[in-house]
Amino acid sequence: MFNTVTIVGVGLISGSFSLALKDHQLAGKVIGVSRTGASAERALELGIIDEVLPLDEAVRQSDLIYVAIPVDATLPVMKTIMDIITDRQIVADAGSTKQALCETLADHPKRNRFVATHPMWGTEYSGPEAAVHHAFRGRSCVICEKEKSAPDAVATMEKIYSLLGMSLVYMNAKSHDVHAAYVSHISHITSFALANTVLEKEREEDAIFELAGGGFESTVRLAKSSPSMWAPIFMQNRENVLDVLNEHISQLRKFKSCLEKENYTYLKELMENANKIKRILR
Amino acid sequence: MFNTVTIVGVGLISGSFSLALKDHQLAGKVIGVSRTGASAERALELGIIDEVLPLDEAVRQSDLIYVAIPVDATLPVMKTIMDIITDRQIVADAGSTKQALCETLADHPKRNRFVATHPMWGTEYSGPEAAVHHAFRGRSCVICEKEKSAPDAVATMEKIYSLLGMSLVYMNAKSHDVHAAYVSHISHITSFALANTVLEKEREEDAIFELAGGGFESTVRLAKSSPSMWAPIFMQNRENVLDVLNEHISQLRKFKSCLEKENYTYLKELMENANKIKRILR
Repeated sequence: MFNTVTIVGVGLISGSFSLALKDHQLAGKVIGVSRTGASAERALELGIIDEVLPLDEAVRQSDLIYVAIPVDATLPVMKTIMDIITDRQIVADAGSTKQALCETLADHPKRNRFVATHPMWGTEYSGPEAAVHHAFRGRSCVICEKEKSAPDAVATMEKIYSLLGMSLVYMNAKSHDVHAAYVSHISHITSFALANTVLEKEREEDAIFELAGGGFESTVRLAKSSPSMWAPIFMQNRENVLDVLNEHISQLRKFKSCLEKENYTYLKELMENANKIKRILR
Repeated sequence: MFNTVTIVGVGLISGSFSLALKDHQLAGKVIGVSRTGASAERALELGIIDEVLPLDEAVRQSDLIYVAIPVDATLPVMKTIMDIITDRQIVADAGSTKQALCETLADHPKRNRFVATHPMWGTEYSGPEAAVHHAFRGRSCVICEKEKSAPDAVATMEKIYSLLGMSLVYMNAKSHDVHAAYVSHISHITSFALANTVLEKEREEDAIFELAGGGFESTVRLAKSSPSMWAPIFMQNRENVLDVLNEHISQLRKFKSCLEKENYTYLKELMENANKIKRILR
């Protein structure tokens, strides 16, 4: 499908994207761009990329430029890329926030070569070593502001994600950020906060983790996630994240109040309501 | 090892315990006791138990009586059992709280035939269908107030759990309940509250779950847990759970304050601190 693809960032998402392109024979060559020399070296060693180049040189050689770096860094880097590209190249990002980026690029003369995407997949790991084969399969991918991208550019990205096994969801950037706050960003904040809660206690009690079982592990696993990746996401989406966080704290307070007042009936009701999540989770 | 074992309750824990005994050929016959006829029938069909009997008849025939029912029901049922048994039988429970039960039985004339245990394993599912083979392997099992149980009774339970692949941890009942609040009970409350947070939002926005990925799933999976099992746990351990819940809410407020004040540095510090959980989680 492509002679040459550039991935900007050589970590979890971009690395897995590159592996997926290679597995599906969709790219002749993948060039990696990274601010960190060691990461680029490692990505080369792992066969994630075929070559390392500076951003401008990489962009000029590529049919597709795929950006997956922290969302704060994405804004200036994306502007740089958009200033270089021609009308035959495609640029896409994989960021967890969409509104700030779409606003930044709204009036760019090449706006229609950009496709705003968010493949809803990730793990708590980061860096080139975190990249895995078959990463996106069975997950949703959001495409935002489809109407602002050129039809050929959208069609190409749709085709790639579909070949990778993703189902496509269309949204405006604002809705995306609200939804992402609810089904992704808040999960990370609760995990980080839960880890801190237990680590705080550990100062007094040595053996606290000896008992940690599967339930604890699954609720705190996201607390291992990269602060450099997630702090910018929370900041860029701060209003939505604050809304959800306030709602979440008020839901926790309901549990607190039940326990304080020994209101067993309402406590059970809260839990029975939460059980409705069964119909959503596989 | 045993001619006959009775399991009181035929659900996730007792059922998995019975399967483990059978897999290791540690029990000639397993009798099931259940308040719910349908569950007992199902447990028979699934080969979890060999026979269904009323509590008193089952107890009289058994070398070991293993109780795994909601922790509020455990208190009276355990007293009934302890009143019937002889000095050659062993009684053990698998409850998620230990202090209330140990206090209830403290002055019972047969106290030394009882071993207070808590195998730290579970899933979000319940009932006989939730019972699985090889359930406890690789997990910790807490034994409380070992000194109050007869040496032969403790040795037998230690041997069983060891054969099942568990590592043993010894604690007094009070410490157990504090630890359990931190590494198990709070995880369940945050999951229930997170499910309610998102379900609340769903009333306004239909598509909210279309995007839900792996991170969301792992943090809310415990919200599928049985309210009949967990509400009594939270209530019996309410003081410890309230302590942890207050700490957790205050940790969440730190994230909230960072976002409100756009304090990027402190936000990242909170997340970097949470990353220390890496050294605990496998």
